[in-house]
This record gives sequence, structure tokens and C-alpha cells, in this order.
Amino acid sequence: MKNTFGNNLTVTIFGESHGAAVGCVIDGIAPGIKINYEYLAACMKKRQARGDISTPRREADEVEFLSGVKDGVTEGTPICLIVRNNNIRSDAYLPYESIPRPSHADYTAECKYHGYQDKAGGGHFSGRVTAALVAAGAIIGGALSEKQITILSHIKRLGGIEDTDFCNYSEDAQRLAESSFPTLSDEAARAMTERILSAKENGDSIGGIIESAVIGMPTGVGEPWFDTMEGVIAHALFSVPGIKGVEFGDGFGIADMSGSEANDPFRYENGAVVTAKNSSGGIQGGITNGMPITVRTAVKPTPSISKAQGSVDLCLGENTEISIGGRHDPAIIHRATAVVDAVLAIAVADMLVTRYGTDWLGGKK
Amino acid sequence: MKNTFGNNLTVTIFGESHGAAVGCVIDGIAPGIKINYEYLAACMKKRQARGDISTPRREADEVEFLSGVKDGVTEGTPICLIVRNNNIRSDAYLPYESIPRPSHADYTAECKYHGYQDKAGGGHFSGRVTAALVAAGAIIGGALSEKQITILSHIKRLGGIEDTDFCNYSEDAQRLAESSFPTLSDEAARAMTERILSAKENGDSIGGIIESAVIGMPTGVGEPWFDTMEGVIAHALFSVPGIKGVEFGDGFGIADMSGSEANDPFRYENGAVVTAKNSSGGIQGGITNGMPITVRTAVKPTPSISKAQGSVDLCLGENTEISIGGRHDPAIIHRATAVVDAVLAIAVADMLVTRYGTDWLGGKK
Amino acid sequence: MKNTFGNNLTVTIFGESHGAAVGCVIDGIAPGIKINYEYLAACMKKRQARGDISTPRREADEVEFLSGVKDGVTEGTPICLIVRNNNIRSDAYLPYESIPRPSHADYTAECKYHGYQDKAGGGHFSGRVTAALVAAGAIIGGALSEKQITILSHIKRLGGIEDTDFCNYSEDAQRLAESSFPTLSDEAARAMTERILSAKENGDSIGGIIESAVIGMPTGVGEPWFDTMEGVIAHALFSVPGIKGVEFGDGFGIADMSGSEANDPFRYENGAVVTAKNSSGGIQGGITNGMPITVRTAVKPTPSISKAQGSVDLCLGENTEISIGGRHDPAIIHRATAVVDAVLAIAVADMLVTRYGTDWLGGKK
Amino acid sequence: MKNTFGNNLTVTIFGESHGAAVGCVIDGIAPGIKINYEYLAACMKKRQARGDISTPRREADEVEFLSGVKDGVTEGTPICLIVRNNNIRSDAYLPYESIPRPSHADYTAECKYHGYQDKAGGGHFSGRVTAALVAAGAIIGGALSEKQITILSHIKRLGGIEDTDFCNYSEDAQRLAESSFPTLSDEAARAMTERILSAKENGDSIGGIIESAVIGMPTGVGEPWFDTMEGVIAHALFSVPGIKGVEFGDGFGIADMSGSEANDPFRYENGAVVTAKNSSGGIQGGITNGMPITVRTAVKPTPSISKAQGSVDLCLGENTEISIGGRHDPAIIHRATAVVDAVLAIAVADMLVTRYGTDWLGGKK
Repeated sequence: MKNTFGNNLTVTIFGESHGAAVGCVIDGIAPGIKINYEYLAACMKKRQARGDISTPRREADEVEFLSGVKDGVTEGTPICLIVRNNNIRSDAYLPYESIPRPSHADYTAECKYHGYQDKAGGGHFSGRVTAALVAAGAIIGGALSEKQITILSHIKRLGGIEDTDFCNYSEDAQRLAESSFPTLSDEAARAMTERILSAKENGDSIGGIIESAVIGMPTGVGEPWFDTMEGVIAHALFSVPGIKGVEFGDGFGIADMSGSEANDPFRYENGAVVTAKNSSGGIQGGITNGMPITVRTAVKPTPSISKAQGSVDLCLGENTEISIGGRHDPAIIHRATAVVDAVLAIAVADMLVTRYGTDWLGGKK
Repeated sequence: MKNTFGNNLTVTIFGESHGAAVGCVIDGIAPGIKINYEYLAACMKKRQARGDISTPRREADEVEFLSGVKDGVTEGTPICLIVRNNNIRSDAYLPYESIPRPSHADYTAECKYHGYQDKAGGGHFSGRVTAALVAAGAIIGGALSEKQITILSHIKRLGGIEDTDFCNYSEDAQRLAESSFPTLSDEAARAMTERILSAKENGDSIGGIIESAVIGMPTGVGEPWFDTMEGVIAHALFSVPGIKGVEFGDGFGIADMSGSEANDPFRYENGAVVTAKNSSGGIQGGITNGMPITVRTAVKPTPSISKAQGSVDLCLGENTEISIGGRHDPAIIHRATAVVDAVLAIAVADMLVTRYGTDWLGGKK
Repeated sequence: MKNTFGNNLTVTIFGESHGAAVGCVIDGIAPGIKINYEYLAACMKKRQARGDISTPRREADEVEFLSGVKDGVTEGTPICLIVRNNNIRSDAYLPYESIPRPSHADYTAECKYHGYQDKAGGGHFSGRVTAALVAAGAIIGGALSEKQITILSHIKRLGGIEDTDFCNYSEDAQRLAESSFPTLSDEAARAMTERILSAKENGDSIGGIIESAVIGMPTGVGEPWFDTMEGVIAHALFSVPGIKGVEFGDGFGIADMSGSEANDPFRYENGAVVTAKNSSGGIQGGITNGMPITVRTAVKPTPSISKAQGSVDLCLGENTEISIGGRHDPAIIHRATAVVDAVLAIAVADMLVTRYGTDWLGGKK
Repeated sequence: MKNTFGNNLTVTIFGESHGAAVGCVIDGIAPGIKINYEYLAACMKKRQARGDISTPRREADEVEFLSGVKDGVTEGTPICLIVRNNNIRSDAYLPYESIPRPSHADYTAECKYHGYQDKAGGGHFSGRVTAALVAAGAIIGGALSEKQITILSHIKRLGGIEDTDFCNYSEDAQRLAESSFPTLSDEAARAMTERILSAKENGDSIGGIIESAVIGMPTGVGEPWFDTMEGVIAHALFSVPGIKGVEFGDGFGIADMSGSEANDPFRYENGAVVTAKNSSGGIQGGITNGMPITVRTAVKPTPSISKAQGSVDLCLGENTEISIGGRHDPAIIHRATAVVDAVLAIAVADMLVTRYGTDWLGGKK
């Protein structure tokens, strides 16, 4: 299904960085969901470039609804939303037309689209397209929060610096909503910001790890094979540009453990079945067990750096060097948390709608 | 789509551990593929329990074709294949009927199927079902190898013990085909086997990391969003029981790198574009770049251990303890490599058939 | 998705006429559905050849469950069911190997499968495969009837002979369940049977029209575009071998009407909104309006006739003649009603499960 | 998948009659397809209201590309196209807010969307949305014609008046491209136009039958079960508003035939296998046989008529009458041929892309 995600609540994404607009169609969304415009704006803002630690390209990022929303409420028909591209400076990107940037999608785009792709600003591969994802995620995530399902992401690690762990989800949510840098501790925020700035000074960039939690999931959602909750979430997460790894619960750490260390005993707590440590990250046999879904994603450093790098000239057919000018981010991870939140909302909502039916997310008049 | 994987070349899985049979339907498979029965048998054998390091349950694991194969050649119509369950001892599992085993799918199965699920031997959640996956993967993987696409997996790490890295794929392939334990070095095989046996002696189990490579992939396969090659592969891999993490190329290791460390320069080699280090694991922007796809999966320790563990009695509604008898594996990772191979074959073949059409995998008379 | 139907409740079909078995996998079926074995047997019997008006090939048609059913109740996991092929006489079919039978699928099968298809008895194209469809439809239709949704089909027309119209659905249901020939009037049954026998005497065959009704559908099911209720039902119905036309409500008859003749006024009846004439066949704008879904399907005469017909020899590359021996049906329409019932059950159940969620069709313990 | 059609070449539709725009996303379209703007404009014009025989609502219907097209050539990335709504007069529709118009989708929309739907001008159910379908069909159909696959539709019957049959496809194509009313004979055009005008004078409307042909289809496309060529085409066609019946080849006429009348002998003609009469409408066993696909669709009379009709007031819960003012069409069938052409292009192109791969429809640089 290419640029579409989901079985029953689907998001179809479109747009090029320097085209008219990026956007998406959300289909299968229940009628009667009130768009929380404030929350939508907050999510869009989280994804936006800011301060010295991001690209100087600034976009208004206003979400425009072409269909499916009337008087601020979903109609149940497909929502097409767009975010127009305004601040476009294609010239800065032109010199590399035939020289693919290392670890970018330039070369693979050429292989797939045979030169017909729009190369300006990364075209359809640009992080710009995530603006549409974040808008879709904000609408769906807003509706999920009405069902007491909340999604949180923070930078767990960046350039060797660790943030504290989730501790109290409602306080953590408060903190992440208010802070301008997505960590749980002020100290980590300061140290990571400095680390990003020092990368920037060196014409370099830096990667990291995002940790997320989906809190309030009902039990029994997901399938034993193929459409496992982990599989569906990972499928969606690998759409976030730069993500190269996804792990749940104890993840790769579990590889060195014995069963007696890794296993997670059940017990009753206030009448509900819980597990002691949530080692499984809320998912067992591909199906939710009612504990928070915990997932970590590895985000690679922005591949656009000003340092000279080896590449090839696809026209001349020879080796060459490239050093990338233009506007780019020394790190994207602090912007990527908003995208991860959005993608998690999209993925779990689809699974929930599959389980509970097409009206579940909305409201009856 | 629940228990179905794929868009154009699909595998639909069915069966319970102690039912009549496990099996699958392979649909969209090209006509004219000769079943390599020897290779099929070798794959099935790799997945089988063996020696002291596995469960004493032994199955013949003969693959029976109910449709779609005539005179050992695919017809192009759906293949239904089954593997009958013979060696069944359900009684050993019965005491736990209402006490979910920690880190197993017993509790989530109960949540999803409301008690109607077959609990004997783990039912539909049993690793037994992977016999059908391996058979499907062997048929599809056999056809891929005719297209010069090969898939290799070894245990990269187990209980702190590391195997050597892939070094020369064709020699590595030879070695993995011949050895009874899926490592590249003899020393790792010995040390890991000992580690498994010591876990067994303690009534415990052990996890690890599988490393895989898909060699010979054409460029330009995969989608920029949602159906990224990473996303599709990860989606499939999380079906392998016990997998809790998936990473590509430098994976989580990239999180501490700067762009200049992580980036992977292009260069021409014998007229073809290659990258210096394959940091991206053969995938950039969700699309293959012609380098081997490299992927690592974290496999948790078998949750069935004989040590006493805390759990709940869902009938009585109270906390309790459980210690699991019956036949089980102190490790599954050495059997799981065969399943990972199969799942990789299924996932990449579907992407290739989508790109090149339904006849691509087969042959014209 | 080829041989799979449905989005959330899916049926994947497999098997060849003279292979080991025909069968299907039903996935997404709710747990807790009691298999009504009597109803299942009755449905299978309706599809079976009988008396002089059918092929002399007789099959036991016993449905065997390989998975997904325990103690006669669905588990919620995929059901694989098979019907073994016993009464096989392939030799009778062999002479035509390279001469496609007119209006059969022999030629198109050759085009698609390049000669790898199993030709014996029509292979995967055989009406034999509908045994699996009928079994799936019986299980799903049985569950629908617990939800007060019933499906009825009768032969509306055959060789110029008309049956009476549906009049009282519960009485009609009774009559159709009891009678050995699927008409509402005894007279039509007699006349049609005679017509079939006279075709048989002439080495010929005869077609007709099946009329069906789905009674008890909730309102609001279906989509305005693409997954319209008509579109989904028609998609499924064209799988029934020999069907060349599908119409809803007034269907093709509406083409000569004016709006004032065709329009169907609403009115309240016992507090519920109904329409006066059900001209729309229970569907408006692609969505159910609560009236019975009425649909008619045109069934072509069995193409296997003993009269000599023109054809080509694909090996010799020249024109030739063929006259078909073997066992075949002078009409299939009296057997096809069972298949139409099954397909309607499969199609509407999928739409209902999409709307109401995966547990809707089943029961909680 | 609701408002999405297709497996590999997908069209996702959105928009409300009186919203900002109607439009669609075309995904899976090959790179390198030159948009034929003249053909696009011609298709859009065919769908437009014209003269006295249509609604006085007139729209510019300019197609605007938001993504996926650069310098008039497809990039291979998703195309979002929109057609803005300009000429909106919602007030004319308001009186019926709680009184569903007979044989319209007002009542079923209410059942499905619980009152949240945009009712103005029929909202998402409006024929206006077909502007997006026609645009998508024109792009895809334009690319098909480069592959020598052409699609033709004419009004076969309207209010009892018959058009002549297809006779010489290339001359028929010429005639249909040039004429302002989609019939093959001038006489039928005149008589049908008069019939429409007389319906208009009576405040009434009129239905008819569209006959279409897809010429140049390769053999071997389609699946034996479920994704039969007939099933997929019918699925798509029932999206065209007002269509209540679909038949292929001899269709419902076959119901009164014997096998010897209906069967269609094969013979060689210029080295190619053809059939004598194309009774099967180019499809046998669900798969194309290389003959033109012939299909007829029954279009109901426009349900909006000014005559008084019975209905219900959903607010007051009582029976009432309605007579519909506003601007509407006395017939839509002459506009619907453009939509049928578009939908046929969309449906067969998806099947072809599935068979031949994602690059098939486009061109390599």
C-alpha cells in the first residue's frame, strides 16, 4: 500500500519539500471528534525548527483542512489536510543534482524514480513531509486522549548523555508538554543542547535514542502473528526519517539475560492484573497486556553535514567529494519526538479501531 | 489483515500446537518454481529441536502440500501446506489452565479470546506454528536464491558471548549450511552451547541476538513512507516469537555517533555504486541501495523455566506461584535463526513481487 | 490480495479439483461462535450434485477442521478447513490438454499460469472449490443468523421460466430450507427441472438468474465510495463460477424508469424508517438503509456440453473441434444458490465486523 | 479500505460538494508519465454539466496538483490533485436538513455519520466528488492509451431509446471524442436529448444503461477467485453514483440461453487466439482472454425531482412530503459516461500494475 498506513483508520501521505504543499488523507476516522486546535498547534510547534539547534528554515506550518471537518468536528468522511510550503530556497540545493549525499535518500530515490523525482530539498523524502504526519497524529492522538490513552516521548540518550527514566507518567506528561526541549530532566536538556551546538560548530551532527510510552491501552489488542502490536508499531516507526532501530520493553538488553532475570511476574494490583517490571513493554505474544507500551527508537545523526565527504557523480560516472551547504539541522531528534508521538498515535489507533469498530474513536450526537 | 503477511505474495498462517496440524497458505506465488525438497528439508531440520540444548519434544515435521504444487513445481495457484502434529502430550500443560505463565502469551490470549483459545502447548501462540513459516520461507527463499538473492543468519551474541562478524558471505553461507549450531566461529558455537546447557541445569533459559544479511537485493525496492524496507521487514520479524528488538545497519549504535562518523560515503567499485561501510544496512530513505540488508534481532530468553515465579490465578482472582514442568527449550535462538531466515525471505519477496510483477519469481515454460 | 476476500474477516481459498483437497482459511473470526454442524451439513448438501439434473460425480464433502475450532466452538484464531477430494477420474479430462474448452477458463488459465496449472477437472477453476466457500459461508452465515441476519436465495428465472417473488421472508426461508430445488413455487421447480433434463438430453446446458435477499442488516453499513455495499457484494459474487451480471434493487429495470417511478419514498412503520418499495435494494449511497438487501445474479449455462464446438489446438497452433465427454452438469444454478448464499454471508459479515469490531460476531464467555 | 481503491495503484478520494475542494491521492503511479493536459481537460469537460439537459451549476473544474507532478511529468511519488469548489449556493439545500430525499443518500448518511456529515449539496455523497475520479482516471487512462489500451463508453439505452452497438472501435472512439453527447448514432443523441428535456419539463428525471469496452487488454490478467477481473471492475463501478447493475459480455441475457447458444468458440485469427462472439466480455474464469472487456452498467434516474414525494422528518419523527428545489440534473447518464471511463481506467490499471510491476505504466529516462 506504499504511502498509506493502517487497515481501518488509514493515513495516506503526500507532498514534496519544495512543492505546493505536504499533506495527508485520514480515512476511517469516526464522526464527532472535536479537533483540539490548541493541541494541534502545540504538536506542530514541537516539530518545528527552533533556536540555534535547528535549521534556519522556518515555516508557518498552518494546517488547512480541505475536507472531512465541519465546524471543527470530524464528519466521518476522509479528512484531507495540507500544510503549505512557503519558505522555499531551492537554489541552495541545486549543486548536488547528480551527486548523492552520503546516507541520504538521494541515491535510492534515483534508483526508484529514475530521475523523475523532485530533488529540491529532498523532495518527497524530506523531513518536511513529517509536518503532515504530525498533524494527522495530533488529531488522532487528541481523540485517543479522550479515551484516556496518552502517548509520551523523550530523548533518552544523545551523544552519550542520558536522560532520567519515566517515573510518574502524569507528571512526565506535564513536563514534556511545557518544556521546549523533550527531556525529563533539566540537566539532560542543558547538556544535550550543548552537545548539539558543539556538533553544529564542527559542521557536524549528532544522533540519539527516543523513548516512548503509550499509557492506558486496553488489553487484548494485537494479533499473534504478523499484525503483532510490536510489528505494526515498528512498521510505522521506521517511516520516521533517520530511525534505524526499534525495541520494546527490555529490548536488546534482554539478549544477555537469563529467563529468570527477564521474566516478568504477574500480580493483582487494585483488582487489575499487572506485571512487576513491564519487561515486555506492554506486549506479550503480540497482544497488549494493559501495561504501558514502552518503545525505544534509534535516530541517526542528520546526514547533512558541511564537512567534505566522499561520493559519486552519477552523470560523470566517477568518484568525487561533496560538502553540503544550505540550511540543515545539527540534530533532528528533538524535533523527531513529535513525529514519533504522531506515528504511535496513528499505529495504535488503527489497531483499536480494528478491534472496536469504526465509531469507537468518535462520539454519537 | 491479522494472520496474513504481504501485499502481493502473501502468507496466511494457521494452526495450534496440539491441534491436527499447523500450516499456511502461500498466495501470489509465481507458477513454475521448482520446489527444492532437499533445501526445504534442511530448513525444517534447522528449526527442529536437537540434542540436549532443546526440548525433548521431537516432531517428524514433514511438509504436506494440499494444493498449488504439481509434480514438485508451483502452479501459480495458492499453495496450502501443512505440518501435522504427532508428538502431543497435552497433559503436561494442563495444571496452568488458569495461571498465566510470566512473559508468555497466556494472559494476553485470555484477554483477546475470552477463554475460547486452545491453551494446550501454547495453542496458536506456540513456536510450533513457526514450522509452517519455515516451510513457506524455504519455498520462497529457494526461489529467491535462483535470482541470486541469499539470506544468512547467525547468532551474533548469546549470554555475553560474541560470534565473529560476517566476513565473506559465500564462505559464511557454506559454513552456516553445514554446521549444526548457527555461528560463524567454532569457538562461539562451543561457548554458547555450554552457556545454554548451564542455563538448563539451573532450570533457567537464555536469550541473544541474531544477525542476518540479505545479499543480492536489487536497488530501488521499498517505499519512502510506511512501506519502507525497514518497516516491512521489522513488521514481519516481530512475528518471530520472543523478538523484542530490530535494528538495521549500525542500529542503536548510531545513537552515540556524529554525522561524520555515521555517514557512509558512496564510491564506484567495478562500475557499481557501493558504500564504504554499509552503515545504513542496505537501506536509505526506506529503499534498497544494492548493499546487503543487514539486520539484528533481539531474542528474549525462553519464558518457560522450571524456577518458581510469581503469577495470578485468574479463576480465584488471587496472587500465586507457578513453576513450569513439561518439555521446553533452555534457548530457542539456535532454532530461531531458521525462522528469521524464513521471515526475511517472505518479507523481501513480497516487496520484489510488488515491484517486478507476479511472474517475476517464477519461470515461463 | 488475489485469493483472499475481506478486510477484517477474511477468507482465503485454495485447492484443485483433483488435488488432495479444497479448503480455505477463515481469519478474523470472533471467538465463541458455536459451529452449527447440522446447518453446515445442510449447506454442503445444497451445493452437492443430485439426481439426474447434475453431474454423476458424487463427493462425501465432509468438512474437516485443521485449526481454529475446539470442541465445536471457534477459538478466534484462524480456521483452516478442508474438504478432501475422493471421487477423482482424471483420465476423462485428459484428451483436451491442449484444446481449451469454449467459455471455460482453460485458455485464460494457460495465459496466466503458462502451462504449470493443474488441468485435471478444471484444477483451481473447478466449481469443486466452491465446496470450501460454502463451508466458510455456512459458519459465518450461521453466526449471522444468531444476530438475526438471514440470507435467502432462489432461482428467479431459468430458461424463460419464472419463479414467484419473495413474499414473506420467514415462510420463504422455511420453504427454501426444506425443498430439494431452490424455488419458491412447486410449479417453477417442476418446470425448471424439466427444462434442465431436456437440456441434458440434447447434450446441452442452461443458465438462469438467482435472486437473493439479506434480511436484518443494520443501517449505516458500507462506504460512500469504493467500499460501497454494492461494490463489495458484487466483488464477492463475481467469484461464483459462471456469474456474468449483478444487480441490486430494481437493477437494470431502472434504466427505463423516470425518477418519479423509480424513487422510493420513506415512511415510518412501527417507529422505524422504511421505504415503500425497496427499489434501492436496501442500499443508498453505498450504505445500508435497514431494508433487505436484494440482489440478482445472472448465471451462465454450464460451458461443458457434449455438442461439438469450435476451438483451437494450442500445441499445433491450428483450429479444431472439441466435444466434451466426462461428467458434467446440465445446469449449475440449483447448486449455485448455496454458493451465492455463502458469498453473501462472507461479504456482509466482513463489512459488519469492520463496523462493529472483531468480537461482534462471537460471544464472551 | 473505505475511500481507497486498488492494491498497487491506489486512488483515495476526498471532498464535500460545498467544502473547499474535492480531490484524490493517486499512489503507486509510475514515474515518467507525461500528463496529457489536453486529454485531462477533455475528460473533465465531458463530466461537466452542459446546456439545458444538466443542472445550471457550472464549475471551472480546474485540476490543481499539490504533489507528485513536476514539469508535467509524474515523479512516482503520490499525486494529490484537487478541484476547488467555487460555485456554491448552500442555502438552496437547507430546508431538507431533517427530511431525507427519497432514493438519495441523506438517510443512510445520517445512519452512518450520526448527523456530523456535511449535508450541503450532498456533501461527500455528491456527484461533485466524481470530478476527482475523472481527473485520476484521465491521468491513468492517458498512460494506458500509451500502452495501446483504450476505454470507450456510450449510452446504450435511455428511456427506452437504444443506441447502435459498438462496431469499429477506432471509429467509435473518434466519434465519442468529438461528439457532445455520448452516443454512437446521431439519431440516438437527438432522441435521448429530447427525452431528457421532456423529463425536465415534467420536473422529473430519467435513467439508462451505459455500455463500455476496454480494448487492448493483455491476456492473463485477473484472479480465479475474489479478485476476478469482473469482481474488481464491478467493485469500482458501483462507486459511480446511481449505478445499480453491472453485467459483462452477454450478462443477464445469458440467463435464457442454452450452453450451445451462449458458448463462444475459439479460433485463430492472424495468429492470435480470439473468440467468435465475445460472449464472455473478454473475461473467462476471472481472467482476461485478450478480447475487449465489455461491460454494461444500469444508471438510475437522478433522484432529485421537483415533484412532491413522501418522506419522513427525522427530527419530528413523523411522515411528511418533500419537493426538491435547488439546481439538479434531469439526467446524469451523459455525464456519468466520463466517470465510468475513469473508474474502468483505475480498476484495470491496478490489475495491470499488480501483474507487471510498479514501473510498468511509466517510462525509464
